[in-house]
Amino acid sequence: MAVQGNMQLDELKLVSHHLSFGGEQRFQRHQSREIGLPMGFALYLPPQAKPGATVPLLVYLAGLTCTEETFTMKAGAQRWAAEFGIALLMPDTSPRGAGVPGEAEAWDFGVGAGFYLDATEAPWATNWRMESYLLRELLPGVRAELAALGMNAGRTGIFGHSMGGHGALTLALRHPGEFASLSAFAPICAPSNCAWGRKAFTGYLGADESSWAEHDASALMAAQTSPPHPAGILIDQGEADRFLLEGQLQPEAFEAACLKSGQPLALRRQAGYDHGYYFIQSFIEDHMRHHAAALCAP
Amino acid sequence: MAVQGNMQLDELKLVSHHLSFGGEQRFQRHQSREIGLPMGFALYLPPQAKPGATVPLLVYLAGLTCTEETFTMKAGAQRWAAEFGIALLMPDTSPRGAGVPGEAEAWDFGVGAGFYLDATEAPWATNWRMESYLLRELLPGVRAELAALGMNAGRTGIFGHSMGGHGALTLALRHPGEFASLSAFAPICAPSNCAWGRKAFTGYLGADESSWAEHDASALMAAQTSPPHPAGILIDQGEADRFLLEGQLQPEAFEAACLKSGQPLALRRQAGYDHGYYFIQSFIEDHMRHHAAALCAP
Repeated sequence: MAVQGNMQLDELKLVSHHLSFGGEQRFQRHQSREIGLPMGFALYLPPQAKPGATVPLLVYLAGLTCTEETFTMKAGAQRWAAEFGIALLMPDTSPRGAGVPGEAEAWDFGVGAGFYLDATEAPWATNWRMESYLLRELLPGVRAELAALGMNAGRTGIFGHSMGGHGALTLALRHPGEFASLSAFAPICAPSNCAWGRKAFTGYLGADESSWAEHDASALMAAQTSPPHPAGILIDQGEADRFLLEGQLQPEAFEAACLKSGQPLALRRQAGYDHGYYFIQSFIEDHMRHHAAALCAP
Repeated sequence: MAVQGNMQLDELKLVSHHLSFGGEQRFQRHQSREIGLPMGFALYLPPQAKPGATVPLLVYLAGLTCTEETFTMKAGAQRWAAEFGIALLMPDTSPRGAGVPGEAEAWDFGVGAGFYLDATEAPWATNWRMESYLLRELLPGVRAELAALGMNAGRTGIFGHSMGGHGALTLALRHPGEFASLSAFAPICAPSNCAWGRKAFTGYLGADESSWAEHDASALMAAQTSPPHPAGILIDQGEADRFLLEGQLQPEAFEAACLKSGQPLALRRQAGYDHGYYFIQSFIEDHMRHHAAALCAP
């Protein structure tokens, strides 16, 4: 799986790569048009990713404070991606190096906390454009990279953790047809009504709450007139997760919205599990199987 | 798997714990008698670790710059430990906080680089006593902890990576009968003849090389009169490992010593793999199966 030199790969520069389960774990970097800054991302190509192959793509969105490396190193997902022949795309969680005053002062806002939306409020609106970055730039860019390597990009799925679970749920609901499969670990399900979400939405979208529902998974789901993911959504939530106990996650709000919209949801409450990657590792196989069923079906 | 309050656990203080694959990933801390300083370690108890059960113990020794958390978070071993019912013990790689001048100036000597031996040279001899710490204090302490939790400690195996592979091979050979199974990822096989080893041995054991052979896996193996691990030793070595290419690892020296001593060795040269945890993740299943065959047999 040697790297091919071509225009596409020059744009999405390869920083490092590691063989993993017979596939290739890449760390790449590019100058983002949407963000206006350099952005890093990680891409796992399974051993099946060879010229002529159709390669499904599964996007993982990480949580507060994380980077493109967090899931890549800690989740154990490559084993299953290699088994099922799925490419994994791990973006970073926010712009870095914008120089916005105070951008790195809080762990739950600014750097490492992009919330996967396009900010409308100054000074964030210039660079904090994670939704446009992901949908209009990174996903098309990675698909073009696969094409440049002689592969066909197959279906795309999305999942994520905590803030990234919010990202996965909202981006899938805001872009119907874009993602063929959807799951989340301990997602922020009702950001309009929790401390993390209210802080982020106030800062990025403004104090006028009328715009918030468009980025709130539970509000988006409640507004659906037919189930957007008829094959079902999978959510795992640890019952010993302190952020669940603090009210930051509110899976019950998303569960109620799914019930209202007729959306099949497997919300699994896992006794004793906390919010971290030991929890994610423990259930990654089930999530990978959930996505493989939709992404790898003929 | 609630934590029991008792003397033993008060000594080996529980700092944090996380449910993982139905078992418990613990981070513990204690005042080490042998080291003379507080030491952290990680212990994974599989779901089978219940009162009355016999629980085999597998020790993992990490490489240069690592801590007790590195393997715990990055290797994906808990999945297999949970499947086979094996407890995993991950010690730290050196004393920390001794205050020896220059102890943290090099990444390959001093802090994070204990080489799993007892130093004889000042100023290291006071605290750098990793061999005595592991064999005379931590292993008995963890076995007593299992007993205090109502379990029986079963057989013990050992493995490790790089400097920790050196540690696993040398400790198993220096303490016959202590470890029922042995494997390594990219171990330093001939420390007397590589830059890392010569620096460490000169510093910890002194410039007189006559004492070095007792801590050199290849020299120890060559001196065996019968195969110490008749069921075989497993070593995986990435062929794209830059430290292999630099001559730091020299698996061929250990291979030759095993041949001389009649020791069965599966030395697998893995094309394209490097020295890191993406390599370890990729082959952890095989190592866990290798240890389970010896540790879990009736």
